[in-house]
Amino acid sequence: MGEEVSNKQIVLKDYVIGFPKESDMFLKKTTIKLKVPEDSTNSILVKNLYLSCDPYMRNRMSKSEGSYIDSFTPGSPITGNGVAKVVDSTHPNFNKGDLVWGRTGWEEYSLIKSPETFFKIQHTDVPLSYYTGILGMPGATAYFGFYEVCSPKKGETVFVSAASGAVGQIVGQFAKLSGCYVVGSAGSKEKVDLLKNKFGFDDAFNYKEEPDLNVALKRYFPDGIDIYFENVGGKMLDAVLLNMKIRGRIAACGMISQYNLEQPEGVHNLFCLTTKRIRMEGFLVFDYYHNYPKFLETVLPKIKEGKITYIEDIAEGLESAPAALIGLFSGRNIGKQLVVVAHE
Amino acid sequence: MGEEVSNKQIVLKDYVIGFPKESDMFLKKTTIKLKVPEDSTNSILVKNLYLSCDPYMRNRMSKSEGSYIDSFTPGSPITGNGVAKVVDSTHPNFNKGDLVWGRTGWEEYSLIKSPETFFKIQHTDVPLSYYTGILGMPGATAYFGFYEVCSPKKGETVFVSAASGAVGQIVGQFAKLSGCYVVGSAGSKEKVDLLKNKFGFDDAFNYKEEPDLNVALKRYFPDGIDIYFENVGGKMLDAVLLNMKIRGRIAACGMISQYNLEQPEGVHNLFCLTTKRIRMEGFLVFDYYHNYPKFLETVLPKIKEGKITYIEDIAEGLESAPAALIGLFSGRNIGKQLVVVAHE
Repeated sequence: MGEEVSNKQIVLKDYVIGFPKESDMFLKKTTIKLKVPEDSTNSILVKNLYLSCDPYMRNRMSKSEGSYIDSFTPGSPITGNGVAKVVDSTHPNFNKGDLVWGRTGWEEYSLIKSPETFFKIQHTDVPLSYYTGILGMPGATAYFGFYEVCSPKKGETVFVSAASGAVGQIVGQFAKLSGCYVVGSAGSKEKVDLLKNKFGFDDAFNYKEEPDLNVALKRYFPDGIDIYFENVGGKMLDAVLLNMKIRGRIAACGMISQYNLEQPEGVHNLFCLTTKRIRMEGFLVFDYYHNYPKFLETVLPKIKEGKITYIEDIAEGLESAPAALIGLFSGRNIGKQLVVVAHE
Repeated sequence: MGEEVSNKQIVLKDYVIGFPKESDMFLKKTTIKLKVPEDSTNSILVKNLYLSCDPYMRNRMSKSEGSYIDSFTPGSPITGNGVAKVVDSTHPNFNKGDLVWGRTGWEEYSLIKSPETFFKIQHTDVPLSYYTGILGMPGATAYFGFYEVCSPKKGETVFVSAASGAVGQIVGQFAKLSGCYVVGSAGSKEKVDLLKNKFGFDDAFNYKEEPDLNVALKRYFPDGIDIYFENVGGKMLDAVLLNMKIRGRIAACGMISQYNLEQPEGVHNLFCLTTKRIRMEGFLVFDYYHNYPKFLETVLPKIKEGKITYIEDIAEGLESAPAALIGLFSGRNIGKQLVVVAHE
């Protein structure tokens, strides 16, 4: 029973050390029956539509040694967040035709054996691909990281690194909606222009053109930074610490500049935490998923009313997925990077 | 009016770079009239009894460049916390004979022009010198840092560095009183013995004898650290980050290992903040001084009942003050370092 169809997959060759390359992954041609196997109760078989490329996935390419997240399995398809359509289900909560998002495989069809962590997509009057971005993990990361970890107050100054990325562009817009002054850093003129002209940041700069990040930050924040939304780590964090205000807050969301280094860079200015009574706090969005409906309720209307905008960088076809993922680490993408596997 | 007496002073020669030396300070012989000058309203003249040697004073030996605290003035006496007796007063809140503690000069007598920040000593049934330590700034640092910043819960695991120092020895005892498991690090066998046998730490180790701090911490905390009371910074912090538990807390109290370095060491493992959702928070005791009475109310009875003990390293005579201060940075002192200028 169940039609047998082609199921191309993107498979990890082996654990990665240093900067990942396209050749660390390969395309594998397999087939799959479009039916949940008889021995799989509480499972769903999904057709993958959109796959999300996220920086944290680099950590899953390394061999896990007590990491916070499991490694990919060499010889098996990459996994990550995606938007998918249920083709068959033996799970009481899911029906054929349901649209869902959650951790799926980098392949055309995936059998999901524990779909309980998947979110059902109820609102389809926005681009479906948004559930890999502003309405998915990155959006929730921006929302809970900014509102819960940073505790913003009107009139405060906010700095966002990797500001045109999947998370940063939203944080900046939340900051503006909260009455804050917000500056972003990014890695090209095009991205800086987007920050200023599309996302409404008060200002923005290209970190690659700044010989001294401390000097750059002093230019944009002569009175200091209240809130730093940390996406990059390393030298930028060191410069930010020198420019934080007393009782500033740093949300440690990610440190993309460090993920491909065998030894992360040293951060030297941590004594600023003491002298300026700074709270630096790490967070993972998983911890907040029970409040996902609240997030959706807040953000969805803002998207529909045009009060929040979102830019995606869409790669066409599963074959383009390895290059899309790796492009994150050289900053090749403009906005949220995702891959279309199928449009419906 | 007012008897003119000898007033020896310890004067800073010049700003210090790198490791401080005794010769960075010198003894100066001056005289002083034992009366507040007629043009000084709201002032007190005090006889200094005990002077406190504290690690933060190293930062005041450097030229201030927007530091959290003002530098010492080359050519003028060192200043710092001390216990003193009021000899004359033109301030309505202070009377001759009052015992006080606050920021005084490293000299026999000091004219204090704004004594409003001084605390009056009401309880003299404990050693007066305790007001430089367990009942003064270090005690309040331990109290507010541990209870307010670390939010300890019964059964949690606590690690304290520089654990036999002025602050660390109290933090460890607070941790035990809170039902925590506590381990301390220190720099000699004698200090480690004190931690275990005198202060009741569950365990302790000599960091100088550990080739790998990460391995050492894993030995004492096989399930990880909930709370780290940070007094040293640098390599120890890096090792601690690897051993923190999920949702652990780090109170950044001080980083004594870094104060004499022209460039602080790099800390490499900060991404652990994200993956383990750690809150790392700096604090300064000044911010909590409005709650000093509450602290005193809690700690004073515990001292009298013998539930908290305190060890002091007492240098005799103002002449011994430079060596006492500098000894902090090589760990020469055992317990709270202070200097007796006069016994009454």
